[in-house]
Amino acid sequence: MHRTTVLAIDTPGRSLVEVTREAGSWVAESGVTTGLLTLFIRHTSASLLIQENAAPEVQDDLIAFFEKLAPEGPHYAHDSEGPDDMPAHLKAALTQTHLAIPVIDGRLALGTWQGIYLFEHRRRPHRREIVLHLAGE
Amino acid sequence: MHRTTVLAIDTPGRSLVEVTREAGSWVAESGVTTGLLTLFIRHTSASLLIQENAAPEVQDDLIAFFEKLAPEGPHYAHDSEGPDDMPAHLKAALTQTHLAIPVIDGRLALGTWQGIYLFEHRRRPHRREIVLHLAGE
Amino acid sequence: MHRTTVLAIDTPGRSLVEVTREAGSWVAESGVTTGLLTLFIRHTSASLLIQENAAPEVQDDLIAFFEKLAPEGPHYAHDSEGPDDMPAHLKAALTQTHLAIPVIDGRLALGTWQGIYLFEHRRRPHRREIVLHLAGE
Repeated sequence: MHRTTVLAIDTPGRSLVEVTREAGSWVAESGVTTGLLTLFIRHTSASLLIQENAAPEVQDDLIAFFEKLAPEGPHYAHDSEGPDDMPAHLKAALTQTHLAIPVIDGRLALGTWQGIYLFEHRRRPHRREIVLHLAGE
Repeated sequence: MHRTTVLAIDTPGRSLVEVTREAGSWVAESGVTTGLLTLFIRHTSASLLIQENAAPEVQDDLIAFFEKLAPEGPHYAHDSEGPDDMPAHLKAALTQTHLAIPVIDGRLALGTWQGIYLFEHRRRPHRREIVLHLAGE
Repeated sequence: MHRTTVLAIDTPGRSLVEVTREAGSWVAESGVTTGLLTLFIRHTSASLLIQENAAPEVQDDLIAFFEKLAPEGPHYAHDSEGPDDMPAHLKAALTQTHLAIPVIDGRLALGTWQGIYLFEHRRRPHRREIVLHLAGE
């Protein structure tokens, strides 16, 4: 069985937005007991990440780290879409455009402390699309 | 249905080589309407990346960024394959060895501005192999 | 056919632990000739990586590179789990939580020099779980 859907997520600008619950619910509704969920984000200035879901400071440190690693500045050739656009592409390149998570006994096989996040790299709010694909039986 | 093929790509040395068309054509020929395409590169000094396909400056900035992040230099223990080899492994580790893209209505569910790229990290031209795998129905 | 299993790996602390043989054996036992193997690590302070399996210096350079890129220090907000915890999350974010490798003729379609590694980012030994998922026919 192969099934797809599209999740639309409104982000408040630069942040990590958790989508674990949305992804898990869709898998649960499918009736699949053994399979694989794939998430694919249809953008190049936002990305996906599995990270710790317990301590909110981890998210602050993640955002600060990537900010320092790919800062805004006058040194980019591509600046026509604003100073936060090229850094956003770099952060997307360093993280993930897609994730895949096995499904066991009808549930995502995430570890206890793992959450699925959309990583918004632009400063301003955006509507983002994540394609979900489920293969299983 | 599970199907595989191997794509051989000649690169001109350090660059991003787009393979979106090749991947999309193979999916179209398969007759699969709903499924998942996986691309896997059989190398550790070249990698895969989904990035913006419109502004060529984005690619220049990407290459320059990774060059600065993992520069050549005398500080690597592994130097037997040339000064650009260890930086190539690091850039591959920071990007992707594989990508997966859902197929909806017989087409790759890429966003408007997304292209699939082979990221060649070595200075000299190389022949690279990408394995394509398609599961679907 | 969809099948899953869980691999428990004991790590000696910060290091790359190869799991290519374990993954390959499980695929071979399944009888699948064409398909896709997915590995998913159930942690956010260890990750997965496909890298060169020949020169051990490559591994030393990889570990040193990520150490320098995400060093321990007093500048993290999240420090309640020890000084090596937040750097571990960052290194996990920069590498992979999952990998997927096509299966052709019953074997993983890895390149000659590619090995599959668990990348332990914490200083102390840990028991880590990798979920394996195989889809194929």
